[in-house]
Amino acid sequence: MNTFGRTLRLTTFGESHGEAIGGVLDGFPSGFAIDPSVIEDALERRRPGKSRLTSIREEMDYVHILSGIHEGVTLGTPITFLIKNEGFRSQDYDALRNVYRPGHADYTYAMKYGVRDVRGGGRASARETAVRVAAGALAYEWLKTMGVEIFTYISSIGHLELEDTLWNQPSTPEYLDYLRSSRNHIPSCPDQALSEQMAEIIEQMREEGDSVGGVISCRVVGLPVGLGEPLYDKCSARLASAMMSINAVKGFEIGDGFRMSKCRGSEVSDEFYLRDNNIRTKTNHSGGILGGITSGEDLTFRVAFKPTSSIHKAQQTVTTQATPIQLEIQGRHDPCIALRAVPVVEAMTALTLADFYLSLLGSKASASQCNSI
Amino acid sequence: MNTFGRTLRLTTFGESHGEAIGGVLDGFPSGFAIDPSVIEDALERRRPGKSRLTSIREEMDYVHILSGIHEGVTLGTPITFLIKNEGFRSQDYDALRNVYRPGHADYTYAMKYGVRDVRGGGRASARETAVRVAAGALAYEWLKTMGVEIFTYISSIGHLELEDTLWNQPSTPEYLDYLRSSRNHIPSCPDQALSEQMAEIIEQMREEGDSVGGVISCRVVGLPVGLGEPLYDKCSARLASAMMSINAVKGFEIGDGFRMSKCRGSEVSDEFYLRDNNIRTKTNHSGGILGGITSGEDLTFRVAFKPTSSIHKAQQTVTTQATPIQLEIQGRHDPCIALRAVPVVEAMTALTLADFYLSLLGSKASASQCNSI
Amino acid sequence: MNTFGRTLRLTTFGESHGEAIGGVLDGFPSGFAIDPSVIEDALERRRPGKSRLTSIREEMDYVHILSGIHEGVTLGTPITFLIKNEGFRSQDYDALRNVYRPGHADYTYAMKYGVRDVRGGGRASARETAVRVAAGALAYEWLKTMGVEIFTYISSIGHLELEDTLWNQPSTPEYLDYLRSSRNHIPSCPDQALSEQMAEIIEQMREEGDSVGGVISCRVVGLPVGLGEPLYDKCSARLASAMMSINAVKGFEIGDGFRMSKCRGSEVSDEFYLRDNNIRTKTNHSGGILGGITSGEDLTFRVAFKPTSSIHKAQQTVTTQATPIQLEIQGRHDPCIALRAVPVVEAMTALTLADFYLSLLGSKASASQCNSI
Amino acid sequence: MNTFGRTLRLTTFGESHGEAIGGVLDGFPSGFAIDPSVIEDALERRRPGKSRLTSIREEMDYVHILSGIHEGVTLGTPITFLIKNEGFRSQDYDALRNVYRPGHADYTYAMKYGVRDVRGGGRASARETAVRVAAGALAYEWLKTMGVEIFTYISSIGHLELEDTLWNQPSTPEYLDYLRSSRNHIPSCPDQALSEQMAEIIEQMREEGDSVGGVISCRVVGLPVGLGEPLYDKCSARLASAMMSINAVKGFEIGDGFRMSKCRGSEVSDEFYLRDNNIRTKTNHSGGILGGITSGEDLTFRVAFKPTSSIHKAQQTVTTQATPIQLEIQGRHDPCIALRAVPVVEAMTALTLADFYLSLLGSKASASQCNSI
Repeated sequence: MNTFGRTLRLTTFGESHGEAIGGVLDGFPSGFAIDPSVIEDALERRRPGKSRLTSIREEMDYVHILSGIHEGVTLGTPITFLIKNEGFRSQDYDALRNVYRPGHADYTYAMKYGVRDVRGGGRASARETAVRVAAGALAYEWLKTMGVEIFTYISSIGHLELEDTLWNQPSTPEYLDYLRSSRNHIPSCPDQALSEQMAEIIEQMREEGDSVGGVISCRVVGLPVGLGEPLYDKCSARLASAMMSINAVKGFEIGDGFRMSKCRGSEVSDEFYLRDNNIRTKTNHSGGILGGITSGEDLTFRVAFKPTSSIHKAQQTVTTQATPIQLEIQGRHDPCIALRAVPVVEAMTALTLADFYLSLLGSKASASQCNSI
Repeated sequence: MNTFGRTLRLTTFGESHGEAIGGVLDGFPSGFAIDPSVIEDALERRRPGKSRLTSIREEMDYVHILSGIHEGVTLGTPITFLIKNEGFRSQDYDALRNVYRPGHADYTYAMKYGVRDVRGGGRASARETAVRVAAGALAYEWLKTMGVEIFTYISSIGHLELEDTLWNQPSTPEYLDYLRSSRNHIPSCPDQALSEQMAEIIEQMREEGDSVGGVISCRVVGLPVGLGEPLYDKCSARLASAMMSINAVKGFEIGDGFRMSKCRGSEVSDEFYLRDNNIRTKTNHSGGILGGITSGEDLTFRVAFKPTSSIHKAQQTVTTQATPIQLEIQGRHDPCIALRAVPVVEAMTALTLADFYLSLLGSKASASQCNSI
Repeated sequence: MNTFGRTLRLTTFGESHGEAIGGVLDGFPSGFAIDPSVIEDALERRRPGKSRLTSIREEMDYVHILSGIHEGVTLGTPITFLIKNEGFRSQDYDALRNVYRPGHADYTYAMKYGVRDVRGGGRASARETAVRVAAGALAYEWLKTMGVEIFTYISSIGHLELEDTLWNQPSTPEYLDYLRSSRNHIPSCPDQALSEQMAEIIEQMREEGDSVGGVISCRVVGLPVGLGEPLYDKCSARLASAMMSINAVKGFEIGDGFRMSKCRGSEVSDEFYLRDNNIRTKTNHSGGILGGITSGEDLTFRVAFKPTSSIHKAQQTVTTQATPIQLEIQGRHDPCIALRAVPVVEAMTALTLADFYLSLLGSKASASQCNSI
Repeated sequence: MNTFGRTLRLTTFGESHGEAIGGVLDGFPSGFAIDPSVIEDALERRRPGKSRLTSIREEMDYVHILSGIHEGVTLGTPITFLIKNEGFRSQDYDALRNVYRPGHADYTYAMKYGVRDVRGGGRASARETAVRVAAGALAYEWLKTMGVEIFTYISSIGHLELEDTLWNQPSTPEYLDYLRSSRNHIPSCPDQALSEQMAEIIEQMREEGDSVGGVISCRVVGLPVGLGEPLYDKCSARLASAMMSINAVKGFEIGDGFRMSKCRGSEVSDEFYLRDNNIRTKTNHSGGILGGITSGEDLTFRVAFKPTSSIHKAQQTVTTQATPIQLEIQGRHDPCIALRAVPVVEAMTALTLADFYLSLLGSKASASQCNSI
C-alpha cells in the first residue's frame, strides 16, 4: 500500500503535519557513489514558495539520510531519508476538523479508517510527494550512468496548450535542447512566450481565489529495448499506475494517446527502418512502447492534473456530522498544482524505469556494473 | 508478469496459436454457486466473426473448467479454465516469420526473449484477452451479489463521439437504461443513430484495408465507499494499470480526465450534499474517486484504443535480418479493435474491483457472506 | 496462496480427484531446449505403486504440456502442464464424507472454506505434489546447465538413522557417488544394508495397518556465492518455507541444525581457508549458508516427515455434525509418506534455488546465457 | 528483501553502527489505542547488559515514533520508529575490517555487494532484531485484544534440556502459569532449577571465551481456526520462514517436529473430540496446525540457535586479500545468543500471526473491530 516498485522498492511514511515524512528505498545497487546534493536540487524544484505562482508557504525540505550510504557510497542496504515537517501552521486546519472538503480525500479516508489526521490532509496531502522526489533523484542518478535522460515539462495550463509537432517524432539534439530550456521558465514550459502567458493565467487564478488544471509531458531518451514485462506488468501499465498514484492526476496517455483513438491505422503506423544501424521507427506515435515493452525509441507520455481542489471561493459541503454547510477555505494554496508536480512526474518515471532496468540486469549485474570504486 | 491482482489473482497462459489458452483464478470466494453459462455469454460478446464489422475468423471459444468448481459450487481452490485454439490458419503467419510488423510486439519480443512464436503473435496477441473475459465473468457474478453493476460501451470511433452531458452527473435509472441499451447495438454505443454511423465508418475502413481507433467508456454503480489503498495502490492507479495492460490501449482517464486539466477549480468542484441520507456529491467530475479511494459515487473512466496495427495497405518495415522491405499484411483482421474490447474492459474492471472488495472483506467475511449453500 | 516463488513462479491447481491437476511455471528463461522426458522421469520416481513399500494405487501420471514450449524450446512464456486424474476410486472416500480424519486437513479446510471437496482430500492431498515434481524437473534442468547438482535421500525411517560423519564436511567425489547410489535403493537411502532394514520396518507397518515417519536429507553442490536476500528472504528462510509447504513435513534444519544448539562455538566454527584458490570453509556445520546467503560450500539440510495420518487402526474422531465416532480408514495408503517425498524435496529445492539464481542474473542475462539455439 | 509480511508489513532499515536503525509498519489497523511503553518493555527484555549472562555492552534503546500514531491512537498510516545507535565502539571493529570472521556474514556480504559496512556487521548484525521487537510489540498488543497470548521461553541450553511431558497436550491454566513464570528467570526457562544450571554453563562459556547454543520454545494460545493459506502460504511455512530469518537460527520444528519422524502413526494420532462444545484434539502432536492451517489447538514450535560465532578463542581464517591468518576476536559478545532472542521469537511470531489474522478479517473488519474511539 505505501510501497512502490518490485526490484527497487520505495516505502514512504509520515503525515503531512506530523513530525517528519520520509522513505526507505530498498534494492538500490551497492557501491554507487552518491552526491547527496542531487536530492536537495530535486526537492528545491518542487518546493513551494519558490515563485509567486506557487503557494507562499515556506517548506524548507532538508533531507537527512539515516542509512544505506556510508562514506558517500551506497551499501546495498535500504537507503532511508527523513524530511522534518517545519514551518507549518496546523491551526490553519483547525477550521477543517469537522468538515469534508470537496475534491479532497477527507471523506473517503474518514470512512475507510474511522479516524482521520486533519492536520494538512495527513497522508493524502501532496506533501508526501517530497519523499518521492528524494527517492526519484537517487534512481535518476543511477539511470544517468546507464545513459538515460528524462525531460519533464508543462505542456498545457487551462486552455493554453503547447504546440508541439515533434512530439511523435524521434528526437534531435536541437529538440532536446529546446525541452531542456523549460527548466529556466516558470512555469517550466519550453516555449518561453507561452510560459509567460501561463504565468498570467495562474496569477489571475490566485487573485480570484480560484485554481486551474494542467498537463505535464514527459520524454525519456536512451532507454534500452526490453523494459517491461508481459502481460500485466507492461512498462506502460506500470507507468500509468505510477502517474495515477500522484495527487490530483486524472489522466494518462502514452505516445499519441487519446488522439490515436481518432486516427486511421495508416496515419499512425510507426514504420521500422534502420537508423545508425539500429532498428528504429520513422515516427513515434506509439510513444516508445510496443506490446508493453520499450522499443528503443523515446518513451513519451502525458499526465493530466485537475485544478487544485482547495479554492477560496465558497463551496457547499457537509460536516462530519452530515450537516450541510458553506465552506470558504483559508490558507495558502497553489493555484495550479501541476506546476509543482513536474519533479514528481520525473521522480516517479525514474523510479519506475530504474525498477524495470534493475530487474533486467539482475542483482549481480547491477551491483558490479555500478561499482565505481 | 502473467499474473494480475493481489487478493483475487488471475494467472494466464497459452500462446495465440498454441494448443490452448487458459487461466487460473485464485482467491475466489468458496461456496459460491456459479452457472458456467455466464462465461460463455461473456466470451460470445467478445468473439470475432459475430458481425461483418469484426474479423471474419471463426473462433469458437468453448470454455472447459478443470478445477475449483464442484457440483456447481466454488471450492475456494484455484478455478482453472481452458479454451482450445481451433479454426486457426497458422499458415497466414508464415509470411510474417522473418519480418517485424509495425505497431506489433514482434520486434520487442524478439529482442527481449531471443526466440519468438510467430504463430499469431504468441502471447502478445489479443487472443489472450479471451481468458480475461472468462475470469472477469466470474468476478462480475460475485460483484453482482454485492449490488455492483458495470456499464461498458463504445463512446467514440474515429471522429464520431458520443455526446454525453450526463457523464459527470450521478446516474438516474433512465440514464442507466440508456447505457444498458448499448448491448443491442453493433457497435455497442447507446446512441443507436450514432452506432449506425460508426458501423459505416468501420465498414469503410474494411473496404479500404485500413483501420480506425476508438474510445470505450465505463461506469460502475453500487460500489461501497473505501475501495482502494493509499498511496501506491489507489483504485484509480490499479484501474489504469489494468486498462493499459489491454492490447492497443494508449490512454486512460478517470472522471472528466484530460478535460479537467483545462478547467478552473470552481467549475469542477464536486460539492458534498445529502442524498437519501448518504453523503454524496452533486456532480461527479472526479469519477467516483477521492484520494484514490471510491467515494460511493459512480466510478467513471474512459479508455483510448489505437487503430488496429494490422492493415492491408503497404507498409515499410525491416526483416529480422534488418533488411528494409515492403509489407502487405494478408489475413482477416478487425478494422476496429475497440469494438471487441468492450467485454475485455468490463472483465478487467470486474477483476480489479472484486480484488479490492475481497481485500476489504477479508478471507473470512467473503467466504461466509457468499456461502449460499 | 497457490503460487510459489518470485522471479520463477509456480502456480498450481486441481483437486486430488477432480479432472486434472496442473501448474503454470512463469519466469522460466527463454530459448532453453527441454527434453520433456525429464518430467516423466521425475514423476516416475514419485509415483505410488512402484514398489510394494508404497501405496498400491496405480497413478499413471502422463504430463501434457499446453504452452510455453514450441518445437522443443522454451518461449519465455508461461509453461503450463496438465496431469489427468485417472485410476482413482472416489468411492473409497464416500465413507469419509461426513467425518473429520485425525491428522488431515479435513476439519481446518471445512472451517475455513465452509465447503469441502471430500474426494481424496481435494487440494490438501499429497497428489498436488506431482505438479511440483513436474515443475521442479524443469527448474533442475536449468540449474544443471549452471553446474548445480542436488542429492536428496532418505536418512532415517523411524529409529533407523543413517550414520553420516561426512554430513558437515565439504564433499568429495567418492562421497557424492555414495549419495548418488541412493537412487538404486528402495527406500532411497545410500546405505544399502540400512535401506533393506528400513524396507522391513515399512513392510511391517503395512501389515499392522500402521505407518512410520522419516527424515529426508538434501545436499546441493555447485552453487555460487550470493544466493539469498537479506533480511527476510534469506536462502535458508525460503528453503524452510518451501519444505514446510510439503504435506506431512514437521521440521526443517540447515547444516547441523538442532544438533548445533547443543554445541559450543569452538566446536562448530567453520574456519575459512583456501581450497583451489577459492575461499572456502574447512568444515560445514553451517550447511553452506552464512547470513542467509549461500557461501559456495555445499548447501545441506534435513526435512522431518510425520508418519502417514491415514492408518487402518481404529481412531476416535467426530463427524461433521460433531458426533463422536470410531473411524477405521479403508483404502490404499502409503505406510511411510517420506519415501515418495524424496523427489518432492528435490523439486522444491530446485524451484527455490533457480528462483534466487534467476533473480541474481536478471531477466536479460538469464535469457541470453541459456540461449542454446 | 528488507520487508516482512503481506497484509501487515514491516520494512526495516539501518546498519548496526550507523546513525540509527528503525522500521516502518504498514497495514496496522486504525483507531487502535497504543501505549508506547509496550515497545519499551519488549526492548528492555532484549537489551544486552541486563545481566552478567549477556554482553556487557550498554545499548540504550529508546524508541522514537515518527508517524502513524496521533494522540495515542493509530491512524491506519505507516507507523515509523527510530532507535538511535549510541554507546557503540566502532573501533572494536577496526581490527576486523580486512578479515572474514568465521560463522558471520562478512564473506557472503562482501561477495554479494562488493562493498561492506564493517562497523558491527552492518545489516547482518543481530542489532537489527531490536526493530523487529519494537514492531512485534505493536502486533502483539493487537493480538491480545483478539484473545491471543504468546509464551516464549528457553527450553534448552547446550545439553541442558527442559523435560516437558505436557508439550504435546492441550494446555491447562496451571501449565500456562508455569510457562509464564519463565519471565522471572534468567535464562527465561520455566524450570527455575534448570535455569540456574543454564546460567552456570553460560557463565563458564564466558570465562572460557567460548559460546553455546540453545533452543527457544513457543506456545500460542487463543488462536482461531483458519489462519494460514494453502498451499504455499501455510501458517507453518511462514512461521518457519520468519524464524529462519532470525540471526543464528539453524532449525525449526512444529509440534513434535523431528521426534515425529521417529514415531508410528498410531502413536501420534491427534484424535478429535468435543471440548467445551468445540471440536478439538485430545493430544497435540501436530502443534496446532492441520494442512498448514491453525486448528484452534495451541500452536507450538521450537527454534534452534547455534552458539554465538564471535568467540575469543583463536580461529583460523583468511583476510579479504585471501591470506590465511589467525584471528582472536576481541570485544563484548554474548556467550549464548539464544538468551536475548526470546523476545525476537515472540515478535516474529506476533507479526506472522497478526498478518494472517488481519488478512482473515479484511481491512474493513479490522479497522472497525479495533476502533475503540
